[in-house]
Amino acid sequence: MRYAGINIKRFYNLDSGVCKKGKIPVKYKELMGLVASFVLRCDDCIKYHLIRSYEEGVTDEEIEETLSIGLIVGGSITIPHLRRAFEIWDELKNK
Amino acid sequence: MRYAGINIKRFYNLDSGVCKKGKIPVKYKELMGLVASFVLRCDDCIKYHLIRSYEEGVTDEEIEETLSIGLIVGGSITIPHLRRAFEIWDELKNK
Amino acid sequence: MRYAGINIKRFYNLDSGVCKKGKIPVKYKELMGLVASFVLRCDDCIKYHLIRSYEEGVTDEEIEETLSIGLIVGGSITIPHLRRAFEIWDELKNK
Amino acid sequence: MRYAGINIKRFYNLDSGVCKKGKIPVKYKELMGLVASFVLRCDDCIKYHLIRSYEEGVTDEEIEETLSIGLIVGGSITIPHLRRAFEIWDELKNK
Amino acid sequence: MRYAGINIKRFYNLDSGVCKKGKIPVKYKELMGLVASFVLRCDDCIKYHLIRSYEEGVTDEEIEETLSIGLIVGGSITIPHLRRAFEIWDELKNK
Amino acid sequence: MRYAGINIKRFYNLDSGVCKKGKIPVKYKELMGLVASFVLRCDDCIKYHLIRSYEEGVTDEEIEETLSIGLIVGGSITIPHLRRAFEIWDELKNK
Repeated sequence: MRYAGINIKRFYNLDSGVCKKGKIPVKYKELMGLVASFVLRCDDCIKYHLIRSYEEGVTDEEIEETLSIGLIVGGSITIPHLRRAFEIWDELKNK
Repeated sequence: MRYAGINIKRFYNLDSGVCKKGKIPVKYKELMGLVASFVLRCDDCIKYHLIRSYEEGVTDEEIEETLSIGLIVGGSITIPHLRRAFEIWDELKNK
Repeated sequence: MRYAGINIKRFYNLDSGVCKKGKIPVKYKELMGLVASFVLRCDDCIKYHLIRSYEEGVTDEEIEETLSIGLIVGGSITIPHLRRAFEIWDELKNK
Repeated sequence: MRYAGINIKRFYNLDSGVCKKGKIPVKYKELMGLVASFVLRCDDCIKYHLIRSYEEGVTDEEIEETLSIGLIVGGSITIPHLRRAFEIWDELKNK
Repeated sequence: MRYAGINIKRFYNLDSGVCKKGKIPVKYKELMGLVASFVLRCDDCIKYHLIRSYEEGVTDEEIEETLSIGLIVGGSITIPHLRRAFEIWDELKNK
Repeated sequence: MRYAGINIKRFYNLDSGVCKKGKIPVKYKELMGLVASFVLRCDDCIKYHLIRSYEEGVTDEEIEETLSIGLIVGGSITIPHLRRAFEIWDELKNK
């Protein structure tokens, strides 16, 4: 990103590092990133974590369980994001 | 709760059901509930999921990794909640 | 929705039930759903409640009073949603 | 408020004016203020609108229906506020 | 705006007045409006304050420093808005 | 903080670095941090930036102008935080 200075670049490094392998398997870290993005209602962030979850071999059931937690915690205000999340997931599986 | 009607009671059932055993182990579901509560900055909800995580045998490292994701996703506005979360975790371990 | 499991379906039932007739007339329940969606800044949810309000015979003045409350409570960050809400309302009346 | 300037004072006037009588009865305007405060999770604001609702003769059932809408829209993250809201309501009725 | 009543109009006046010249230079007031819009994640509001900042002669470095504060305070959930903000800034400079 | 790992420590460094001197004077950076904390409604963060603003010689008028922007952007839901912010400011000046 053209205008990004040192603080923004450092933050980006932190952001990509925090979901790396640790005591918690990467797959579950991605699902945590997904549920956090979901309750904060950021479609671009949800999409990013759905793609990463797909790459990590997450199943339909695991996505459904994760988004159910997001829906109950975040309420019906998240429903439009739920719909779009399922559409993205469907596209990822059928491409 | 004295004034709760049928819709509120049904929601409570849903809420307690959504973290039950499924394809995702209960432990990771609780950590998902924790990270969602953390980025939404609800101290009472964070405490609840810390207690449940403790009961499920979650380790210090797993709590630290989960809250790191929350901190990076949610930003420095979550720092006061991080401090209180670590205090609660400390109390749970030392009681 | 294809991937929706039992918890999501139950939540959907709750969601559609909560605005049904009770001690509070349906019209005012829809306006409550509208103001809640408005301060949480969810365009799709706002649109849904505008359509339902229109079906319940809500007048221009009632929409204006409801969104005024939303604007004062939610602040100028809601202004883009206010503009879009009035456009949707105009379309509903002129179709 | 000692430091408040002209803009803050004008905003306060607007804020107290927006729930005045109009096409929508004051009672329902207060319940709209309540549901908006509830989904935005501001305890002080919730308390204010509960007191005003009580003064306008709102019943237990109407409070319950209003907060049910808030709970479904806002999700389980609002539960601690629901608990405190019912406690405040109970105090108002028993003082 | 066609449906806007007296309260909405008064709020609009307040909103446009609050960034006028005072003890704080207009330029920094616009950057405050920008950072507030940024952490609340409202693209239309961000765009408005970027245009106003550009008109006030704000430099690339000042925009970068302002959005860095927003990114650290608001977390990675703001990244999609950061990307779009830099694109808008680039367009403003190259039109 | 006892449980903080490398990512949390790096984030803390970033957080304290972002308000350091740059093209924008430190004083205005603190006021930006203040307005961001204010619209996100975090009392502890507001207090921190009020203390830092006080140390940087910010005047009553500058605090008032900054919080006016926060109030108009964030709406009446921020009023309880405004009251507490003015109280803290008063204590800082009279200690």
